Amino acid sequence: MPSASASRRSQEKPREIMDAAEDYAKERYGVSSMIQSQEKPDRVLVRVSDLTVHRADEVIWVRARVHTSRAKGKQCFLVLRQQQFNVQALVAVGDHASKQMVKFAANINKESIVDIEGVVRKVNQKIGSCTQQDVELHVQKIYVISLAEPRLPLQLDDAVRPEVEGEEVKTIFLKYCASSEGRATVNQDTRLDNRVIDLRTSTSQAVFRLQSGICQLFRETLINKGFVEIQTPKIISAASEGGANVFTVSYFKNNAYLAQSPQLYKQMCICADFEKVFCIGPVFRAEDSNTHRHLTEFVGLDIEMAFNYHYHEVVEEIADTLVQIFKGLQERFQTEIRTVNKQFPCEPFKFLEPTLRLEYCEALAMLREAGIEMGDEEDLSTPNEKLLGRLVKEKYDTDFYILDKYPLAVRPFYTMPDPRNPKQSNSYDMFMRGEEILSGAQRIHDPQLLTERALHHGIGLERVTMLFLGLHNVRQTSMFPRDPKRLTP
Amino acid sequence: MPSASASRRSQEKPREIMDAAEDYAKERYGVSSMIQSQEKPDRVLVRVSDLTVHRADEVIWVRARVHTSRAKGKQCFLVLRQQQFNVQALVAVGDHASKQMVKFAANINKESIVDIEGVVRKVNQKIGSCTQQDVELHVQKIYVISLAEPRLPLQLDDAVRPEVEGEEVKTIFLKYCASSEGRATVNQDTRLDNRVIDLRTSTSQAVFRLQSGICQLFRETLINKGFVEIQTPKIISAASEGGANVFTVSYFKNNAYLAQSPQLYKQMCICADFEKVFCIGPVFRAEDSNTHRHLTEFVGLDIEMAFNYHYHEVVEEIADTLVQIFKGLQERFQTEIRTVNKQFPCEPFKFLEPTLRLEYCEALAMLREAGIEMGDEEDLSTPNEKLLGRLVKEKYDTDFYILDKYPLAVRPFYTMPDPRNPKQSNSYDMFMRGEEILSGAQRIHDPQLLTERALHHGIGLERVTMLFLGLHNVRQTSMFPRDPKRLTP
Repeated sequence: MPSASASRRSQEKPREIMDAAEDYAKERYGVSSMIQSQEKPDRVLVRVSDLTVHRADEVIWVRARVHTSRAKGKQCFLVLRQQQFNVQALVAVGDHASKQMVKFAANINKESIVDIEGVVRKVNQKIGSCTQQDVELHVQKIYVISLAEPRLPLQLDDAVRPEVEGEEVKTIFLKYCASSEGRATVNQDTRLDNRVIDLRTSTSQAVFRLQSGICQLFRETLINKGFVEIQTPKIISAASEGGANVFTVSYFKNNAYLAQSPQLYKQMCICADFEKVFCIGPVFRAEDSNTHRHLTEFVGLDIEMAFNYHYHEVVEEIADTLVQIFKGLQERFQTEIRTVNKQFPCEPFKFLEPTLRLEYCEALAMLREAGIEMGDEEDLSTPNEKLLGRLVKEKYDTDFYILDKYPLAVRPFYTMPDPRNPKQSNSYDMFMRGEEILSGAQRIHDPQLLTERALHHGIGLERVTMLFLGLHNVRQTSMFPRDPKRLTP
Repeated sequence: MPSASASRRSQEKPREIMDAAEDYAKERYGVSSMIQSQEKPDRVLVRVSDLTVHRADEVIWVRARVHTSRAKGKQCFLVLRQQQFNVQALVAVGDHASKQMVKFAANINKESIVDIEGVVRKVNQKIGSCTQQDVELHVQKIYVISLAEPRLPLQLDDAVRPEVEGEEVKTIFLKYCASSEGRATVNQDTRLDNRVIDLRTSTSQAVFRLQSGICQLFRETLINKGFVEIQTPKIISAASEGGANVFTVSYFKNNAYLAQSPQLYKQMCICADFEKVFCIGPVFRAEDSNTHRHLTEFVGLDIEMAFNYHYHEVVEEIADTLVQIFKGLQERFQTEIRTVNKQFPCEPFKFLEPTLRLEYCEALAMLREAGIEMGDEEDLSTPNEKLLGRLVKEKYDTDFYILDKYPLAVRPFYTMPDPRNPKQSNSYDMFMRGEEILSGAQRIHDPQLLTERALHHGIGLERVTMLFLGLHNVRQTSMFPRDPKRLTP
C-alpha cells in the first residue's frame, strides 16, 4: 500500500527484520494494514494472464496468490497464481531488494495474497511449470495483503495432479493416496471438506467457468429462439412424481415438499399461452444413492414448448440448442477445456450438425451386429447404452445423438404411440458419450391441462458438464454437492 | 387440418350441421382430430402481432385463442388473441362460408384454440378494442384445435380492467367486486386459484416477459464485466442467518434447512479466487407475514465481488448493473411496458447515469427541510423512506438512487466504520420508487474466511419487477407465489 500507511505497516514486520537498521529496502515490503476503503489509489492491477512478451520491460502491479516460494542463496523464486494462470517472480538482492526483503519473501505462507510491483522480463528458456512461459517478473516491491494460515489441509499441487482413468472413483474412499506414479493425489472427500481451497485449483477454476458458460449459452440460444425464462416454485403442496424420493418440509403448521422437477409449472405456462419457456433451477431427489453420478440436489436446465404439427419440431429445437452450447463452448472456452485436460486428458467432444437421429430399430441392428442378443421390445441396459455410444462414435463420428422411436412397451403408459407403427412410440432419449442426458416423449392428450402439444425436457447441468469434459464424478462439477451423506460445506 | 382427416373431422360436427346436406362449406370448418405427429404440413403460421397493413390482401394461416365471438345476422365477429396481441376476424356468409359455418364459429367456446385461414383486409376505421387496429381477417377456413370448457372461473376481460391505485390491495379480501366504474374486476385469490387462465391475460404475458428480460439483462451485464455465474445449494446443514425464519427439511434420518440466502457460498467463491460471482435462484423465508410485499419463496439476484481498494468500486459496479437493466428494459421491452400500463397506469421509471449517490447526512437535511424531526443517528422509517423517495425525485428527477454512509449505530456490529468519521459506516441501501431493494455493507475482516474485501448483495426479482412497473402487489410479479397461506398452484 502507498506511503500514508507505511509507518503502521513497518510496525507489523517480523522483529528480526525490524532490528536490522541497515535495511535499505524497508519501505519496499511488508504486511499491509487492513483495507478500510480509505484511499482509492490510481494503481492499475494487471492480470497474470496478461503478462506476456508484449509487456516486456514494463513496470507493472499485480495482485495474486503465492502458489510456491523457494529461496536459493540471494534469490527467492515465487510462483504467483491467479485463477487458471500463473507466472514466476524473482526477488534478488540488488538495487531494489535487500537480503532482508528476500528473506521476507521466502517466508510468506503459501496461498497468501500479495501486491507486487515488478518489471516484466523476457526469459531465454521457457518456464515449463507456469502458464506464462515466456516472461518472469523482477520484483521491486512486495506487500502481503492477506496472510494465509501456515498449514493447509491439502496441497494445491497434489490436487491438480493428472489422474489415470478410473482412479478418481477408486480414491473416493482413501484419504490421501499415492497415484500410479507414486505421487500424492487428493481424494474427493478431502477436497469437498476443504472446498474453498480445492476450488482455487486451476482445474476447478476452469470447470466452473465452463459451467457458467453452459448456462449462458443455453439461455442465449433459447432467448434467440423466442423462449421466455420462467421461475418455478420449489416448495410445493404435493409430491410431483408419485410421492417417492421426495423431501418433506415443515411449512408453518403443515407439511410441504421440495419439487422433484418444474414440469407441472412449465406445462401450466404452455397452457397459459407462453408457447416456449425454459428455466434453470434446483431440483431435489431424496434418493439414497451413493454413486459417482447421483446427487440429492442438482441444477435442471428445463425446456417446455408447444409444437404445431409434429413432435420432431421440438426434438430438433432441443438438439440444436445442445449443438449451439457445444459449439459455443469450443469457441469461447478453449482455455478452460485445455486447463481441465491437463489434469483429466480426454478426447475433444464431437457432434454433427444437424444432430444424428437414430431410430431404435437401427440401434438394435447395430448392437446385434456387435454380438448382443436383444428382443425387439427390450430396453437398453446401461452397458449396452455405453457400447452403443462407442458403435455410434465409430460409425458416425459423434459423441452426441438422439435415439428416437422407443418401443411403446418400455415407456410409461401416457406415451403417445407412433401413428404408423403401434409397437413404437413418439419418444426418444439424447446421449452424450454413451450416457443418457435427457428423456422426452409426446404425451397423450390431457383434457384438463391441454398438454397434448407440449413436450417436457430437463437436462442436468452437472451431468452435461461432466460428460462434455469427460470427467468421472459429478461432484467435480457441482460446487457444493449434496448427497445422502453430505450436507456441507 | 388438411383433407386426409376430413372424414373423421366431419363426424365430430354437431348433429344439426351434419343434417344440413346442402352445406357447401363443410370441408372448411370443424373440430380437428388429435395431433399425433402424423404429418408435418408445409403451412406457415403467422403471428398475430405480424398482422398489419403490410400483409394486406395476403391469404395467411394463424393459430390463436378465441377471445370473444359475437354473431350478428349473417356474420360472426371473432377476436383472436395470441399472448399480448389480438385481431378481429370476420366470418360472413358468402363464397367461402355457409350459414352453418357462421353458426359453428359463433358457438366456439371462448379460450378455444383455432386454426384459421383468412385474407388480411385493411379497415377504414381503426378497431379500438384490438392491438392490431388497421386490419381484420376475413375467414375462409376455421378448425378448432383445442376446445375449451364452456364455463371459465374468471373472465379475461374482467382480469385486465384498469384498476385505480390502491384498489388491488383493497380487493384482496373480496371475491368478485365492482370497480369504481361499476364493472367487475378479479381479486388476487381468484386469479391465483386459476393461474393458468390469469397468466393468459395480456398484462400477465407482458409482466413475465419483462421479468425474463430482467434476468437476461442482469446476466448479460455481469458476464460482460467478467463475472462467473455460480449455483449454490438450497439444502443446507445449519440455518444461515441465526436460525429464525428458516424452513426445516427432513433429510434422510436427520434435519436440514432451506437456505435463506446464498451468501455463505458466494463468500466461499470469493475466497476461492473467483473474484466476481453472481447467482439467480430461490431464497426461502419462513416468515408468517401476509402483506402485499412478502413471499415465503422468492428469487434472489445475488452478486458478490472482491474489491481492490475501496468499497465504492463495488457500489458503482452494482448501481451500473441496475442502470444497464433499466436501460435495456426501456430499449427492448417497450411493448411490454405499454401493455402493463394499459391496466396499471404509471409514470415511466427515471434514473441517472451515473447513479445519484446521496450521503445519509444529506438525506437527513432534505427530510428536516420538509418538516421531519429526526436525530443524526436515527434510522429511516418506511414512511420517511417513501417521503425521501418523493423529495429525491423532485430535486434530482430520479426514481433510483443510492443512500450511502448510514450511521454506524443503526447497522449490524460487523459493519466497517468509515475511517474518516467513526459515527458513519461503509454501508448503503439502494432504492427504487422510494422502496429499498438492496442493502449492502463492507464487513469487518473475518480472518477465517478472508472476506474483508467482499461485499454481498441480493436483489429480489419480484420486488424489482413490481417497482419498475409501478405495480402494487408482489404476487402480480411471481408466477406461482408462495406465502404462509398459499402453496398452490
